[in-house]
Amino acid sequence: MPTSPSLSATARSTLTRKQQRAATDRTELHAVLDAGLICHLALVSGGSPLCVPTGYGRDGDTLYLHGSTGSGNVRTAARGVDICVTVTIVDGIVYARSLNNHSMNYRSAVVHGSSRAVTDDDEREHALRVISEHLAPGSWDYARTPDAKELAGVAVLALDLTEASVKLRDGDPSEQPVDVDRDDVWAGVVDVRTVYGAPRAAAYVPDDVPVPPHIAERPAPR
Amino acid sequence: MPTSPSLSATARSTLTRKQQRAATDRTELHAVLDAGLICHLALVSGGSPLCVPTGYGRDGDTLYLHGSTGSGNVRTAARGVDICVTVTIVDGIVYARSLNNHSMNYRSAVVHGSSRAVTDDDEREHALRVISEHLAPGSWDYARTPDAKELAGVAVLALDLTEASVKLRDGDPSEQPVDVDRDDVWAGVVDVRTVYGAPRAAAYVPDDVPVPPHIAERPAPR
Repeated sequence: MPTSPSLSATARSTLTRKQQRAATDRTELHAVLDAGLICHLALVSGGSPLCVPTGYGRDGDTLYLHGSTGSGNVRTAARGVDICVTVTIVDGIVYARSLNNHSMNYRSAVVHGSSRAVTDDDEREHALRVISEHLAPGSWDYARTPDAKELAGVAVLALDLTEASVKLRDGDPSEQPVDVDRDDVWAGVVDVRTVYGAPRAAAYVPDDVPVPPHIAERPAPR
Repeated sequence: MPTSPSLSATARSTLTRKQQRAATDRTELHAVLDAGLICHLALVSGGSPLCVPTGYGRDGDTLYLHGSTGSGNVRTAARGVDICVTVTIVDGIVYARSLNNHSMNYRSAVVHGSSRAVTDDDEREHALRVISEHLAPGSWDYARTPDAKELAGVAVLALDLTEASVKLRDGDPSEQPVDVDRDDVWAGVVDVRTVYGAPRAAAYVPDDVPVPPHIAERPAPR
């Protein structure tokens, strides 16, 4: 754990606008990262930006990512290059009385840093468990753990959470003075939520195999 | 409309793995882009990758993005630099009998290209309408349209959809041969869906202002 709960304030992690939406508390960063299901990983490949969705998990102030060793992007990221990882949760559509003040409610975290290839066997297993527990809590102790061949096919990356920014928007629309008294026009918020359906067994699973509790009782996303 | 419905196959838009998950139909690209609510925009800023969530809209084979002229990232993107726009929709958590085959069901589109600053007044208004209709269909004809000052504060970008890739996963888990007969282990899918809540009026809206039909009857996300 860092001694200071504040987020860093380097040039690239300092928001240049809508600063009232910036959170500077490390707890907020952790909360956004823990609430997301996937992240978007951006890196520079052949001089061009590339942005791909991927799974992740957080342990303290380390973010772990994994990918196939067969992926060129993962191999690039594993070389210790600058990456950017963004997690965004959309919470609502904000209908203002003016189009210019239409917006979204959201929670978003942007993390900058140099990726580190995780090569130590113990840390690799730990990282894979962290990533697995993020996507599918409880599965690590239920499903078959990776064998040597499967492990060899997975590249694991670590990213330090030191340089990060969090942006949040919540609540009612903002309005311009000219619109505040337009009492013939509706304004408000339509919440956007992510929900899980009931578990659906794969076709090859016999009817008498129970859905395990870690899946049946998985809490709804926050 | 392009004469060919196929997506391009440049080096950076050709998937190097999981090619069975690649869609090559332009209709699929449009469907993913139309189903998403936000995109992640990646660009290179000061030599480092940056990835930020943003709104967008599609008109034919042009993607429009907008941002504040006060945003350094938007100003960078408006200079005609290489950008990457990614739209990801998570459809399910895939619980396999092995951890290595745990996965997600998803639809994802990745678009590469040079951004173009939209400066013509007519195209700017058209683009803003397209972006608005994507986020909040029907609002353009209901809410107050932008005045000159508001328009001056908005940067509009266009991105051609020529160079794009689509990746889809659907259905049951994949399993290794060693796991197929493990009939004591459950496997399957938990669907992930996005839902809209009932419209909530802002505190300053009188009770007798009706929720307009384009908000009250907005169809659920696909």
